[in-house]
Amino acid sequence: MKFQLGCRLNYRTTEAVPFVFNLHAQSFDEQLIEQESLTITPSLPIEHWTMPESGNRFFRVTPTGSLLLEYTAIVELAPKLEDPNSISEIPALELPMAALLYLYPSRYCQSDRLARFAQSHFGGLAPGYSRVNAICNWLYDYVAYEAGVSDETTSAIDTVTERAGVCRDFAHLGIALCRALGIPARYISAYAFRLQPPDFHAVFEAFLNGPHGPAWYLFDPTRLADPAGLVRIGMGRDSAEVAFATFFGETEAEKPEVWIEALEPAPPVTVAAVRPS
Amino acid sequence: MKFQLGCRLNYRTTEAVPFVFNLHAQSFDEQLIEQESLTITPSLPIEHWTMPESGNRFFRVTPTGSLLLEYTAIVELAPKLEDPNSISEIPALELPMAALLYLYPSRYCQSDRLARFAQSHFGGLAPGYSRVNAICNWLYDYVAYEAGVSDETTSAIDTVTERAGVCRDFAHLGIALCRALGIPARYISAYAFRLQPPDFHAVFEAFLNGPHGPAWYLFDPTRLADPAGLVRIGMGRDSAEVAFATFFGETEAEKPEVWIEALEPAPPVTVAAVRPS
Amino acid sequence: MKFQLGCRLNYRTTEAVPFVFNLHAQSFDEQLIEQESLTITPSLPIEHWTMPESGNRFFRVTPTGSLLLEYTAIVELAPKLEDPNSISEIPALELPMAALLYLYPSRYCQSDRLARFAQSHFGGLAPGYSRVNAICNWLYDYVAYEAGVSDETTSAIDTVTERAGVCRDFAHLGIALCRALGIPARYISAYAFRLQPPDFHAVFEAFLNGPHGPAWYLFDPTRLADPAGLVRIGMGRDSAEVAFATFFGETEAEKPEVWIEALEPAPPVTVAAVRPS
Amino acid sequence: MKFQLGCRLNYRTTEAVPFVFNLHAQSFDEQLIEQESLTITPSLPIEHWTMPESGNRFFRVTPTGSLLLEYTAIVELAPKLEDPNSISEIPALELPMAALLYLYPSRYCQSDRLARFAQSHFGGLAPGYSRVNAICNWLYDYVAYEAGVSDETTSAIDTVTERAGVCRDFAHLGIALCRALGIPARYISAYAFRLQPPDFHAVFEAFLNGPHGPAWYLFDPTRLADPAGLVRIGMGRDSAEVAFATFFGETEAEKPEVWIEALEPAPPVTVAAVRPS
Repeated sequence: MKFQLGCRLNYRTTEAVPFVFNLHAQSFDEQLIEQESLTITPSLPIEHWTMPESGNRFFRVTPTGSLLLEYTAIVELAPKLEDPNSISEIPALELPMAALLYLYPSRYCQSDRLARFAQSHFGGLAPGYSRVNAICNWLYDYVAYEAGVSDETTSAIDTVTERAGVCRDFAHLGIALCRALGIPARYISAYAFRLQPPDFHAVFEAFLNGPHGPAWYLFDPTRLADPAGLVRIGMGRDSAEVAFATFFGETEAEKPEVWIEALEPAPPVTVAAVRPS
Repeated sequence: MKFQLGCRLNYRTTEAVPFVFNLHAQSFDEQLIEQESLTITPSLPIEHWTMPESGNRFFRVTPTGSLLLEYTAIVELAPKLEDPNSISEIPALELPMAALLYLYPSRYCQSDRLARFAQSHFGGLAPGYSRVNAICNWLYDYVAYEAGVSDETTSAIDTVTERAGVCRDFAHLGIALCRALGIPARYISAYAFRLQPPDFHAVFEAFLNGPHGPAWYLFDPTRLADPAGLVRIGMGRDSAEVAFATFFGETEAEKPEVWIEALEPAPPVTVAAVRPS
Repeated sequence: MKFQLGCRLNYRTTEAVPFVFNLHAQSFDEQLIEQESLTITPSLPIEHWTMPESGNRFFRVTPTGSLLLEYTAIVELAPKLEDPNSISEIPALELPMAALLYLYPSRYCQSDRLARFAQSHFGGLAPGYSRVNAICNWLYDYVAYEAGVSDETTSAIDTVTERAGVCRDFAHLGIALCRALGIPARYISAYAFRLQPPDFHAVFEAFLNGPHGPAWYLFDPTRLADPAGLVRIGMGRDSAEVAFATFFGETEAEKPEVWIEALEPAPPVTVAAVRPS
Repeated sequence: MKFQLGCRLNYRTTEAVPFVFNLHAQSFDEQLIEQESLTITPSLPIEHWTMPESGNRFFRVTPTGSLLLEYTAIVELAPKLEDPNSISEIPALELPMAALLYLYPSRYCQSDRLARFAQSHFGGLAPGYSRVNAICNWLYDYVAYEAGVSDETTSAIDTVTERAGVCRDFAHLGIALCRALGIPARYISAYAFRLQPPDFHAVFEAFLNGPHGPAWYLFDPTRLADPAGLVRIGMGRDSAEVAFATFFGETEAEKPEVWIEALEPAPPVTVAAVRPS
């Protein structure tokens, strides 16, 4: 399944302001980048860096005045299809220790405070893919998708209380609930096919045991995008580590333009195991 | 139904420390004080004051060194028995404006942040006594009664997240959920018959329309005490206004002794409307 | 000193929505209402109520569709002028017990959590009017006045951390710091002469001992209005109790128009003791 | 400078409970492990793992019933001594991108909410080692070291408000303030020479530019231990990633015994640059 995607960003500064961007599609077996281009106006030195732990692709530029950037790519997604019933949770005893990091509470996913909540709502369910799915269903049913009620300080604790938010908030609460149950979980930013209106999207991954061993499985509790059309950009403990743009100085920004189109008709996907852990 | 009750408190200070106590039983039609005594050792000037809005009975003493005080009373409770099905909510249009004060969020009952939560859990239920009862049942089912997990900074927002606490926390969350639904609610401290171990207890009242007009109805979401044996001490927006002791300086306290015994066998009580608003 | 003031509010509802307004000027010795009018369009039954504890003047209307209301008044302010050096704090031992209510933490003024902060910043200063003034100076110096960074859930705890907000946030933190030092303090909404742009203003009062006995003294840590031109509307523990409009249903509002003009030139005012406690 | 150190931990479980420990001294150029032993009673399979990003040394055991473990080591510390005046901050433009991770807010270090606070207190100071030192001095002066006032949910936001805590809280607030100023900072757990009473200690590191290039510099805002005698155990964004013991099930623990002694007299150390970034 092939997609054409990209974004156009526009900034204005009054002094030299370093920017770090993370908007390139990741590159791994099930997500192949066929073609890619990055255009920066004015022309500026660009420093690229890929974080080894996450595969996140960063670059830094330091404009003075205006900055216009456009990224485009053609990406082939080849998610593995697996039977949800064949996907189980991994007991603490067997968890690869590298995955422990995704059990710890983080800035926006304070799983330490949600232990009883997670137990009373989901503790009685059979462990496995279906339990993470039950968390997503709960989020879909009990949290209102509503723009403008949350902001960049809103965390899972706020959302479990106030019961409204956007994709970022859904992902944070989903992650926090998974971790509170002992399921490693992490935050994913993505180009999201069929998301309306088009924008960067946020979903999450849970670390489960599939037919081919432990893997990270993707979940979108907002149900706003096509699961077969999620092109991963950034991965991290939570959104604190996955901003598409970070800047160090005064900046004016225009609303980003984001797009993704299928280059062929999209078949339905049930469950997608991504890269090996 | 007659009760003998009281408490014994013991403090030690190194300088003159003003104390304000609120541990006298309130006095109103359905709660008659037959006999009462307060003993302070050493003997000190006592300043008494009853707050007009609440009926809370305060007194102030300023010991230097040790303070031992013992309060005892014989109180007759004559709660009205009413059919829960005859008790309805009062629409905002008809609410006595004096009751508005008990709709506002307060220190420990941040109802403003629980609007969606309250709507999604209880918004679909038929309004009335039974809806407040449903809130109490939910608290009983989904919040663990557990000492040591909450403290004096714990509020309804914490309890809705962490799902554990003591009577004070149950009352705060019950109040916040009522207010979020437009039902005035307030905090009550009480001598509580059959509470084990004996201690000051915290419950709450909701303002509803009974067969004889608007009244405050008592609810104990912990189910730890006999509803027929709750002798009211203090009433307020939340526990911030209803401490049994407030002191202004360094103090060492022993754990208070609190007791209440029935002077006759206690009949079961279904619903008790208390004083008129 | 005479002022002409008023406001114009405009709402639209799709069903019958009860509104409670608190926008009338209060009436007391130092604030005399010479003339007053309230116009409601369409014409609707109005229920008036004055809260005995606060003197707040409420009214309730229940429009369906549109509601336009205009309040105008001519008010004479006659604040007493006193020497700040003659105004002292009131020790806990002597505090009128009715003032205790304004020592307790409230929704937006969690003084219980600011005890050490208040002590370390202001504990070493000489008690009195000057100490409350030092709190205001600190607020002015260390909190940025900035619209859009706070909202209706922002409390003193947020402001002490994030150090930015509007008049409401300044008042809340000022109140919380006073209470943490044992000084009763309360929230005041007002028509504020010389406030730019014109709007409802929020300030606070501290309970101190003046040359004529205990009284509530007004403080405006934002320094945005003329202290001689503050016409009190609502008074309460914090803004939770002092909204100019509370409504019970879906409503669209236009931004309120608020005005106040001096009917004679305004002399400078140093310290203004208001009504007796 | 050579130290003999160790700890003894004692647990009791009623079922098989997986434990992950992180209590081994790290191994790097300036911290050489001469000798080390780990004894587990009863004898159990041990799975060791060293996290590549952090150098943290973890091991997992799954006891049923009792678990007694004792770790001992002889460690040689050879910190580099550098002149504080030669140590500068690294502008965002030049920051190695791997260090960005330590600029992001984390569970206990919500630097995003402390931007104005950090600017108003430390923004005017000359950048460099001395500015981080000024943060430490401020923590020492304005936060009370007090056991029992904070717990495992206490974060930098709570400590900046409540102004009391233990080493963990000092480190969290120090880290958050550094990050808010654009200085990467991370949490360190350590065996701490001269700490009284002996216990695991928490300090932090800031990423600065020294005479030999960028490096992580150690800071102890509590001033409770000898800076020349800090043997690093765990490193992470904050304490969420650096627990000495994590367990997955019901467990009773005894208070850990921790010790560290110098095997030769300790010379004073001014500034210690540790491993290269």
